Amino acid sequence: MDFSDKLLKQIEFIKEIDKIKYIQRKTKLFNSDRPENDAEHSWHLALMAMVLSEHANQSVDLLKVIKMVLIHDIVEIDAGDTFIYDAEKNHNNTAAERIAAQRIFGILPTEQTEELIALWEEFEAGQTHDAKFARAMDRLEPLLQNSSNNGGTWNEPGVNYEKVYAKKSVIKDSSTVLWEYAEKLIDTGVMRGILKKN
Amino acid sequence: MDFSDKLLKQIEFIKEIDKIKYIQRKTKLFNSDRPENDAEHSWHLALMAMVLSEHANQSVDLLKVIKMVLIHDIVEIDAGDTFIYDAEKNHNNTAAERIAAQRIFGILPTEQTEELIALWEEFEAGQTHDAKFARAMDRLEPLLQNSSNNGGTWNEPGVNYEKVYAKKSVIKDSSTVLWEYAEKLIDTGVMRGILKKN
Repeated sequence: MDFSDKLLKQIEFIKEIDKIKYIQRKTKLFNSDRPENDAEHSWHLALMAMVLSEHANQSVDLLKVIKMVLIHDIVEIDAGDTFIYDAEKNHNNTAAERIAAQRIFGILPTEQTEELIALWEEFEAGQTHDAKFARAMDRLEPLLQNSSNNGGTWNEPGVNYEKVYAKKSVIKDSSTVLWEYAEKLIDTGVMRGILKKN
Repeated sequence: MDFSDKLLKQIEFIKEIDKIKYIQRKTKLFNSDRPENDAEHSWHLALMAMVLSEHANQSVDLLKVIKMVLIHDIVEIDAGDTFIYDAEKNHNNTAAERIAAQRIFGILPTEQTEELIALWEEFEAGQTHDAKFARAMDRLEPLLQNSSNNGGTWNEPGVNYEKVYAKKSVIKDSSTVLWEYAEKLIDTGVMRGILKKN
């Protein structure tokens, strides 16, 4: 039995992306000190999108948002995780991530390669309503984790209220309700002494 | 600022389901001896559905299939993982899983509770085209893992060709192409001596 070139490429991609389970984030799980990996993180964002999409200011294409969050970190298989408060690496990693997207999504048949690269670029650019909501999920999850988990990465060197507030403002671009909730979590973090103000 | 009861329930659900990251499966990752957890597994099935849906014999509602695979194991937070070749536990765990579904999905606002319980029940019943395809993904992933990983759980006591073949036949109900590929993996496993025939 011969299998189509298309199927064999899809299977190769499915095997390759298993590596995302080894990519550890800085952020810890909600109730433990174990770092979260990118597969777990992506799963959680998809569930968040499923239950929170009604709060987007503009209605979103839920299938597209879920696809975006499920694939947004696959490039880290090659490019590695970048801590959101690492300003230098954040500035420099775009080229490495673009090469990673070409290699990894490029394993798929052409049409699917093009679809996933376009989705990844839309997420990265953060201009469409769908991308803004997907990015809001990506910012909200660690906020929930840190406030559940004694500050979590808020304890890392160089992290303070001002930086957290600035990074999390992305949520405001997508959802007034979720932004009000996020602001409350940040303010409560300061009051509880688990997030430094300056 | 007061938040709606609806939002607070959704946030509580998002925190609760973090526990799925601690539920370990019998199956190991594709290229290591670390067991996979349910969040990683569910993420992988969603990606598989994204890239393989064209091979379903009947066209499927991809958003629904993805939702099903993302939530199908959440009940294991309370009911635990059941090894697919554990005949006794497979026979007895349905009641515990139904109670778990009521408790965990029941954290959400009523409309979402009803949606997720209905999706979970549709997946479990395996009668619709969408559920059949979702279940095919759930059977195909460990097959790919075991054949990449020196037999993996095929080495567990009581597992043999006949049982694997019978369990994997679920794939045939959804996709002729994927079933032919699955059969080839099973036969190759026997030839390589990593799956016992009797």
